[in-house]
Amino acid sequence: MTFSHKASWPELLIDPFEDKPKEECGVFGVMGATDASSLAVLGLHGLQHRGQEACGIAAYDGKKFSTERHLGLVSENFSGKNLRDRLPGSAAIGHVRYSTQGETALRNVQPLYADLKSGGLAIAHNGNFTNARSLRQQLVENGSIFQSTSDTEVVLQLIARSRRTKLIDRFIDALKQIEGAYALVALTNKKLIGARDPYGIRPLVLGELNGSPLLVSETCALDIIDATFVRNIDPGEVVIINKDGTIKSIRPFANVQARPCIFEFVYFARPDSYVDGRNVYQVRKEMGRQLAREFPADVDVIVPVPDSGVPAALGFSQETGIPFELGIIRNHYVGRTFIQPTQDVRDLSVRMKHAANRSVLEGKRVLLVDDSIVRGTTSRKIIRLVREAGATEVHFRSASPKICHPDFYGINLSDPKKLIAATHTIKEMEKELAIESLGFLSVDGLYKAMGEPGRDPDNPKFSDHYFTGDYPTRLYDYDHAEADKNLQLSLLSVA
Amino acid sequence: MTFSHKASWPELLIDPFEDKPKEECGVFGVMGATDASSLAVLGLHGLQHRGQEACGIAAYDGKKFSTERHLGLVSENFSGKNLRDRLPGSAAIGHVRYSTQGETALRNVQPLYADLKSGGLAIAHNGNFTNARSLRQQLVENGSIFQSTSDTEVVLQLIARSRRTKLIDRFIDALKQIEGAYALVALTNKKLIGARDPYGIRPLVLGELNGSPLLVSETCALDIIDATFVRNIDPGEVVIINKDGTIKSIRPFANVQARPCIFEFVYFARPDSYVDGRNVYQVRKEMGRQLAREFPADVDVIVPVPDSGVPAALGFSQETGIPFELGIIRNHYVGRTFIQPTQDVRDLSVRMKHAANRSVLEGKRVLLVDDSIVRGTTSRKIIRLVREAGATEVHFRSASPKICHPDFYGINLSDPKKLIAATHTIKEMEKELAIESLGFLSVDGLYKAMGEPGRDPDNPKFSDHYFTGDYPTRLYDYDHAEADKNLQLSLLSVA
Amino acid sequence: MTFSHKASWPELLIDPFEDKPKEECGVFGVMGATDASSLAVLGLHGLQHRGQEACGIAAYDGKKFSTERHLGLVSENFSGKNLRDRLPGSAAIGHVRYSTQGETALRNVQPLYADLKSGGLAIAHNGNFTNARSLRQQLVENGSIFQSTSDTEVVLQLIARSRRTKLIDRFIDALKQIEGAYALVALTNKKLIGARDPYGIRPLVLGELNGSPLLVSETCALDIIDATFVRNIDPGEVVIINKDGTIKSIRPFANVQARPCIFEFVYFARPDSYVDGRNVYQVRKEMGRQLAREFPADVDVIVPVPDSGVPAALGFSQETGIPFELGIIRNHYVGRTFIQPTQDVRDLSVRMKHAANRSVLEGKRVLLVDDSIVRGTTSRKIIRLVREAGATEVHFRSASPKICHPDFYGINLSDPKKLIAATHTIKEMEKELAIESLGFLSVDGLYKAMGEPGRDPDNPKFSDHYFTGDYPTRLYDYDHAEADKNLQLSLLSVA
Amino acid sequence: MTFSHKASWPELLIDPFEDKPKEECGVFGVMGATDASSLAVLGLHGLQHRGQEACGIAAYDGKKFSTERHLGLVSENFSGKNLRDRLPGSAAIGHVRYSTQGETALRNVQPLYADLKSGGLAIAHNGNFTNARSLRQQLVENGSIFQSTSDTEVVLQLIARSRRTKLIDRFIDALKQIEGAYALVALTNKKLIGARDPYGIRPLVLGELNGSPLLVSETCALDIIDATFVRNIDPGEVVIINKDGTIKSIRPFANVQARPCIFEFVYFARPDSYVDGRNVYQVRKEMGRQLAREFPADVDVIVPVPDSGVPAALGFSQETGIPFELGIIRNHYVGRTFIQPTQDVRDLSVRMKHAANRSVLEGKRVLLVDDSIVRGTTSRKIIRLVREAGATEVHFRSASPKICHPDFYGINLSDPKKLIAATHTIKEMEKELAIESLGFLSVDGLYKAMGEPGRDPDNPKFSDHYFTGDYPTRLYDYDHAEADKNLQLSLLSVA
Repeated sequence: MTFSHKASWPELLIDPFEDKPKEECGVFGVMGATDASSLAVLGLHGLQHRGQEACGIAAYDGKKFSTERHLGLVSENFSGKNLRDRLPGSAAIGHVRYSTQGETALRNVQPLYADLKSGGLAIAHNGNFTNARSLRQQLVENGSIFQSTSDTEVVLQLIARSRRTKLIDRFIDALKQIEGAYALVALTNKKLIGARDPYGIRPLVLGELNGSPLLVSETCALDIIDATFVRNIDPGEVVIINKDGTIKSIRPFANVQARPCIFEFVYFARPDSYVDGRNVYQVRKEMGRQLAREFPADVDVIVPVPDSGVPAALGFSQETGIPFELGIIRNHYVGRTFIQPTQDVRDLSVRMKHAANRSVLEGKRVLLVDDSIVRGTTSRKIIRLVREAGATEVHFRSASPKICHPDFYGINLSDPKKLIAATHTIKEMEKELAIESLGFLSVDGLYKAMGEPGRDPDNPKFSDHYFTGDYPTRLYDYDHAEADKNLQLSLLSVA
Repeated sequence: MTFSHKASWPELLIDPFEDKPKEECGVFGVMGATDASSLAVLGLHGLQHRGQEACGIAAYDGKKFSTERHLGLVSENFSGKNLRDRLPGSAAIGHVRYSTQGETALRNVQPLYADLKSGGLAIAHNGNFTNARSLRQQLVENGSIFQSTSDTEVVLQLIARSRRTKLIDRFIDALKQIEGAYALVALTNKKLIGARDPYGIRPLVLGELNGSPLLVSETCALDIIDATFVRNIDPGEVVIINKDGTIKSIRPFANVQARPCIFEFVYFARPDSYVDGRNVYQVRKEMGRQLAREFPADVDVIVPVPDSGVPAALGFSQETGIPFELGIIRNHYVGRTFIQPTQDVRDLSVRMKHAANRSVLEGKRVLLVDDSIVRGTTSRKIIRLVREAGATEVHFRSASPKICHPDFYGINLSDPKKLIAATHTIKEMEKELAIESLGFLSVDGLYKAMGEPGRDPDNPKFSDHYFTGDYPTRLYDYDHAEADKNLQLSLLSVA
Repeated sequence: MTFSHKASWPELLIDPFEDKPKEECGVFGVMGATDASSLAVLGLHGLQHRGQEACGIAAYDGKKFSTERHLGLVSENFSGKNLRDRLPGSAAIGHVRYSTQGETALRNVQPLYADLKSGGLAIAHNGNFTNARSLRQQLVENGSIFQSTSDTEVVLQLIARSRRTKLIDRFIDALKQIEGAYALVALTNKKLIGARDPYGIRPLVLGELNGSPLLVSETCALDIIDATFVRNIDPGEVVIINKDGTIKSIRPFANVQARPCIFEFVYFARPDSYVDGRNVYQVRKEMGRQLAREFPADVDVIVPVPDSGVPAALGFSQETGIPFELGIIRNHYVGRTFIQPTQDVRDLSVRMKHAANRSVLEGKRVLLVDDSIVRGTTSRKIIRLVREAGATEVHFRSASPKICHPDFYGINLSDPKKLIAATHTIKEMEKELAIESLGFLSVDGLYKAMGEPGRDPDNPKFSDHYFTGDYPTRLYDYDHAEADKNLQLSLLSVA
Repeated sequence: MTFSHKASWPELLIDPFEDKPKEECGVFGVMGATDASSLAVLGLHGLQHRGQEACGIAAYDGKKFSTERHLGLVSENFSGKNLRDRLPGSAAIGHVRYSTQGETALRNVQPLYADLKSGGLAIAHNGNFTNARSLRQQLVENGSIFQSTSDTEVVLQLIARSRRTKLIDRFIDALKQIEGAYALVALTNKKLIGARDPYGIRPLVLGELNGSPLLVSETCALDIIDATFVRNIDPGEVVIINKDGTIKSIRPFANVQARPCIFEFVYFARPDSYVDGRNVYQVRKEMGRQLAREFPADVDVIVPVPDSGVPAALGFSQETGIPFELGIIRNHYVGRTFIQPTQDVRDLSVRMKHAANRSVLEGKRVLLVDDSIVRGTTSRKIIRLVREAGATEVHFRSASPKICHPDFYGINLSDPKKLIAATHTIKEMEKELAIESLGFLSVDGLYKAMGEPGRDPDNPKFSDHYFTGDYPTRLYDYDHAEADKNLQLSLLSVA
C-alpha cells in the first residue's frame, strides 16, 4: 500500500523459465446450481493455464455474499468438502489471473466486491482497458477512493457513481465509458451478468449444466464439469442471467466488425478448447502444416519445443512425413517461486524446465518447432541444448508470424525493444540464435490455418496487432501522441 | 467480506478471562524524526494496554507512503532492524486496537490509507461516532464504495467527497459532520494532523522529542521513548504539524463544556500516565482512600484484584492501616487464543489467570478491592477462590460507582441487561456474589478523588454516563427514539 | 510419534489422480565441488519424478554437517542464494522420496544423520530391505533407540553397532546384514560413499563435473548440471570417494547374476535417461513397436495416455503408419493436496488431470496406448472420457506385460488382489474397461524391446517379478512361509 | 542438526529485558484421569513461569502413545476441544522448558519418547546432570545414536542399554549412573514414574485429583486444577504409580543430607506455591523484613522492582512502616521475539518492560527492593529511570545474598566473570549502579527467613552454592580439575 509511479509502458512479464507472453485472466460464472462454488473451483482449475498467480471466488446464497481470494493455484487454495461452508450458495463467479509486476498484492486479486446502494456486487474480468488511467484520475478527482490498482475497480467505481437507477443500466453506463478488451462476469443478489467487449477481443462462452447457465472463458472449463456448450457470447453482447435460468441479451454498443484475439489460437487457449467455433488443436496443427508448405526443411527429425510447440510440430511432421520425436523433455515440477541457487551452471534457467533427449538428437539434422518467438531468449538456450546433445544441424520454425508490436488488451507483450523479431532481420536472428535456418509463418498463412482465405487489410477478422501493428481500438493512455498527458497521469500516485 | 446485519446494540466485548470493558484504541503520530516508524513501534508498545487485537503503522518518506497492518501485538509484528526498509520515512502514525466481534478482519485494522485528489492520506482514530451509520448510508447512496466496516473510513470518505479545495479544509469539513468521541491522527505528504472531539471525551497529548512533535493517546507513550510532555490537545482542537515542526492550532467547533471520559481514570489509562493533568495512579489510590471513608470494612487483610485493583487497594490500606497483601496471584502467560480444553475444571476460566495465595487468606477476614464491577462474573469466581482458600469472611469494594448505563464512545459497555449493578440491588448483589458486604464508591466520591468538590449535575466535568446515564452528545444511530430509523439502517448491508 | 502396527503387506500407494505405482526415491551425492548443495538442489530437481513427497540435503563444510529436510518439492524448499549459508560445504548428499502411507512425517525424510564414535554420518537410500523389520527388532532388543520408521535408520544403527574399527568396515559390515534392493549414498567428514545392492535392482550412476565425482540415480540428474556420465556403479559395488576426487571400489559380496529392475524402463526413469546403458525413450518406443507387432489394431488414430504412454504410442504409430494425435490433454496444475469439493461430477478425479480432445476423437476408431495397467481404475475413466467425446471404437494396449505380482524392493505395487491383471482374464478386462480390444506386451516382447533375444527363465537378466513372480532375493519379512514370525514382528511397536 | 562444540561453560542465558537467571523446566504427570492431557495442559500453564521457550505432552490411551512438542507457550500450543483427539488417554506427562542458547531446536523439546524392548517410554525432567557429557561419550562409543543434545536422552539411552530385565530396574540402573540435580517424570504403558535426585535439589510434589495421582514441580500446578496436595517426593525417592492409583515408593540411593535449591524461594517458584512445606510468598516477605533489620534505609518510599521484588518490598515496608508504592510499572505485553528497532533510545531494553511512575518518585528518597542482583545490568537501568523521574536519593536492597558462584543444576547462572557481586565490592557496586546505598541480605539472614537459626557450615540445609560456592555434588564435566578431560569431551561432536 504505497505510492508508486506506474510505468507508462507496462513491464513485460515473462516466465523466467520460458519466454512466453502471459495472458492475464480466466473467468467463470454460474447461476442456479447446487454448490455453485464447487463448480467454480473445477471450472477455474480447467482455466488454470490462463493465470497461475492468483485465484478468487465470490458466491451468493440468497442472503449474503462470501468471497475468498488467494495467491497461488486453484488446487492449492480451494479444495475439500468445507467449501460448502466457506462459499455457500447457488450462484458464483470466479477468476484466475496473472499479475503484472509489483501488483501481486492480494488486494488486486479478483473478484472485487462492493456494497452499492442497490446491494452487493461482485465482479471479475479478463482483459485490459486502454483508458483506465484517465477514468481513474477523474473518479479520484470526484472523491472516489480506490483500494486496488486493478482496472476492474474502475468499472466498479463507475457503476457506483452512475446516476441511473437500475443496476443493469448503471452497469451498461459504466461499460460505455470503457475502451479496450474485456470478458467480464458480475454477480448481484439477483443476477449473473456477462459482457464481452465490442470487438470480442477476449473470449466468453455460454454453457449449461442441468439447466444452470454458465459463463466461461474457454470451452475446456465446461468439459471438466461435464457441462454443455451453448454458444459464444457475441462481441459487444451483455447477457443478464436470472435465478430461474432465463437469459436476456442486450447489445448496447454500435455494431463494429468483430476482431477476436488471434493469439488465443497461437498460444493462450488450451488445445482441446473451441474458441469462437474453431478447435484450437486443429488450428495449431494446421499452422504446422502451412508452415511446412511455406518453410520446408531438409532434416532427419521434427522436435517440438514442449508443450506449446507440440501440435504445430505434429502438423509439420504429418505434412512432410519427417519423423516427430520428443527430443526435448519438459520438467513439470518447477514451482513458481524457484530462485536459482548460487551454482553457476550455464543455461540453468532453461535446464530447470527443459532437458535434451540425446538419443534422438545425436548425429541428426533437427528441426525445432515452437508456437512463437517473443524475445528469443529461451529459444537460444534450447537451441544450444540441442546442439550440445549432438545435433549436426539445428533449424527453427515459428508457427506464428513475427511478433513486432506491443499489446494493450491484457497480454504482456509490451516493450517492442525486447521483441527479437521487431529489431532483427531473419539473417540476424539466425546468427543470434546460432541456427542453420529460421522461418516464421506468414500472416496470410496464419489466416489460412484459421480457415480464412488470407488477411483482408481493409477488414481484418482478428486482432493481430502483435504481427501487423493494426490495433482495433483507440489506445488512449498508451497512445504515444498522448505521451504528455500520460506523463501527467503517471504523476498521479496510485496506492 | 460478507453481507451482515450489524446489531443495533454493539455486542459487549469482554475478555473471556476477565470481566473488564475494552477500550478500542490508542493512537500515535510523529513528524520530522529519524526513523519515525521505530518511534511509532515503541510508542504503540507503550499504548498496548489500550488494544491488543491489532496494530498498524503508516509512514511517509517524502516520496511514498508505506503501511503495515497486523493482527496481534506490536512486539510480535514490528521488531528488528529491517523496520527502516519496511516503513521508511521521518513521519509516521500508528494505531493499536480492540475490535468488536465479527470485525476482526485485517481490512478494518488502522491506519487506513487512501489516494485522494490532493495526494495520499493515512488516518487512525480512537473513539466512536454516534452517527457513523447514517453518514455511511448517505455516502453509499452517492456512490462511495466502502472497503471496511470501520468508522474511520467514514471520515476518509467524507474528506474525499468534500467540495473544499485545501486538504485541511476538507478535513474540518468532514469532522463537522461527525458526532461522537474521537482522538484522531492523520498523515499527508506535508502534514501531521491531530484532532480531539469537542467534548474531549477521548484523550490526546502533544509531546516532543529532539524537536520532533508527537501526538499520543497517553503520556506513558512519551516516557517509553524518553520524550517530553508539551501539553494536552484541547477538546475540539485541531493541530496541524508541519515538516519543520511548527504547529498551527484551529478550533473549528462552537465552544462547549469539556467532559473527558472518567473511565480513563477508573480503568483504561496506565497508572503512570497523566490524563488531562492528573496522575492516574494517584487518582486511583485516592479512590481507594475515599472508598475506605465511605465503606470501611472490619477485616484482617486488604487484597487487590490484580492488576487493576492494586492502586485502590493500596489507598484503602494506607487510609485504614489494614495490611495490604497479594492474596491473588495473576498468571501473565495467557495467550489471546487460548480455548478451554475438555477437562471440566470448576471456574477454569478464572483459574487460568488468577490463583489464590492461601498463606495470606486462610483463617482471615478478607477485603477484596477492584476498580469496578461490570457483569460480576469474574468477581464471583475470584470470591469463590478466596473463600475456598480458607477466608472466614469475604468483603468486596468497587473503587468506582455502580455501572448502569451503556457507552457509545468507543468502550464496549453496551447491553444494560448484562450490567449487574443495573439490574440488582446491593443486597441482591451481596447474595449473588456470596459476600459479607459490598460497597461502591459514590459518584461524588469519584469526583472528590479527581480533586473536585463533587459532581455538579448542571455542569458535570466528566463523561460519567456509565454511572449517571448523562450523555454528552446526541446518540443518533443508537437513540431509542430513532429506533425505527435504526431498524432501516440495519437493513443496509455492510460488507 | 505413536505406537502403530505396521501392516504385514505395505499399503498400495497410488496417486489419487493416476493409477501408477510409485517409486520411492532418488539419490544424489557430490564430493569436492564449490557450493555442493546448489548442485544437489539442481540434481534432485532433475530426479523429482522419482519422488515428490519430500526432499532433503546434508552438506559438510570441513567443520560441521548441516542438514535440511522438507515435505514437498525441491523447487519449493531449496532455492535462492542463501543456500550457501544454509547448507555450506564442498560435499553433499541429497534425496527425494515418496513415502508410504502413515509415514509422511518429517522424521522419516532423508538424509538421516547421526554422530557416531567415528564422527558424523549422513545417509540416504533408494530401495527397500526385505529383512528390515527383523533387524530392527534385534537392534531394539539390544538397546538401540529408533527415531524413525525408515529402513535407512536400520543401516545407520547397524553401522553404529558394528564392532569393526574403520568406518568403511563398519559400513560394509552393515550392508552384509541387509537383504533387498538399494542404491545408497553416505557422507562422512572424509568420504562420499555409494553402494548398489548385489543384484543391482536399483540404479546408481557415477558422473563427474569439473573433476568433482557425482553419484546419481539417473543420468538426467547429470545433464541438468551439465556434468559428464562416467559409468554405472556395478551391482554389489561399493565406491569410496575421497576429498581429492580419487575413487576406490570394493566388491564385498559374492558374485551373482545382475538383475536390474525392468520397471525403470517401463515407467520410473525419465525418458532422456540412460539406465545401465540403455536409453529409456528408445526402449519405450521399441516397446510400442513390438506391441504393434504383437497386438495390431485396425483404428483411425493412436492416442497416448499422457505423459507416460507417449513414447510407446509414438513407436506404435511409427510401426503402423496410423496417425499419432494428442487426444487426451493433461492438466499439470494439480497440487498434491487437492481434495475433491462437494460437487458430484462423474469421473471428477480423472477430469482433474485429463481432458478429452474431441476434435481428434469424434467419429474415430481410437487406440489408447499406456505404459502399463495397474489397478485399471484410471484406464476405465479415461476410456469413458474418450467414448463420450465421440469415439466409435476404443481399443487399449499396454506397453508392458500383465502386472500380477507384488514388489518388495521399493515400489508400491503390493496387494495382488488390487492388480486387475492378476484377477481378470483379457475378456473380463475388456468387459470391465468397456473396450473393443485389449493387448499387453509379452514378457519376451519386453525383453526384445530391451535388445535381448527374449527372457531366459533359467537366467533372467532383469528383475521382472511384477510380471513373472520370480523374485531375485529372499523375501524374509514378507515371506508367507514366515507369516507367523511376521505376526510376531508386527506386534513390536514402532514409534 | 550440525556439529557444534558445546562450550565448556554453559552460556549465561538472560532475558534480554530482565537480568534474571532462568530455570530450565517444570514437569507434570498424571495417571488414571479422564482426559489426562487436558489436565496436563492446565497444570503446565500453571508452571509456565518455570519455562516459556517450549512445551510438550505425551499421553497414553491404553494402546498407543501420542506426543506433541512445540516451541512457545502452553496456551498458544495446547488449547481447544480437539485435544482429546490429539493426545488421547488417561495417563500423561508434560514439560515446560527454557533452552540454553543454540539448542532451541524442537528435537530437544521434551518429553522424549522411545520404543524400547519393553515397550514405549516417555520421559521428561527438570534439572541438569553434571556427568551427562561423559555418559554420552561412552554411549556413543558403544553404538548409541543420539537424536538430541538433551540430557534427558542420556537417561533414555541408559535405560535402553541396561542389562536388567524389568523396566523399573532398568530405570534405577540408569539413575544410579547419573550425577546432578533432577526431578523426573516418566510414562510407560503401565506406570507413571517420578524420581527426585538424592539431594532433592529440584522440587517434586505428589498430588491427587478425584483419586488420580499427580506429580508436579510446584503446588500451584495442583491449585489450577483444584487438586489436593498429598506430600513432597523425598530427596532420592522413586515413586511408581500404577493404573489403579496405587503408589509404590523406592529409595535406591544411599542416604545423604537433603539440600533443596534455595533459589526456588528467592526467585523461581511462584509466590503461592509451597516448596518442601514452606510458602514462598511468606518466605519472600520475611526476606524483606530480615533485610530491613540488616540494612535499614532512611527513605520516603519503598518501591519494588516488579514483579519479583514485590513480596520482599512489602515485607520491608511492613517491618519499617515506610510506605510501599508502585513506583515502577511493568509492561506485560513484550513478546519473546521482540528485537529492538533501529531507533536509538537510551535504555530502551529496560523501557520495553519497565516505566517509572513519576508521581511517587519525584522529590522522594526512594528505596528499590529486588529479589536478587545477577549481572546488575537491569538494576542499573532501572535506577537511572527512577532518578530521571525525579528521585532525590536512590537506595537499593537485594533480598538475597551476593551471587558469586555459577550453578550446574539447571539454572543459567554460569560465568562468574559476569556476576557483578563476584567481581565488585559493595562500594564499587554503589558507584557502578550510581546509588546512595546498597545492601544484600546475609546468608544467615536468608536461612532465618526460611525459619532456620542460620546456616550450619558443616551441615547446610539447602543448595546455596550461588552464594557460598559449596556444591552438594561432584561436578564432573564442569570440574576445573578435569579441564583437560573436558577439552577432549568438547571435541566430541554433538549433533
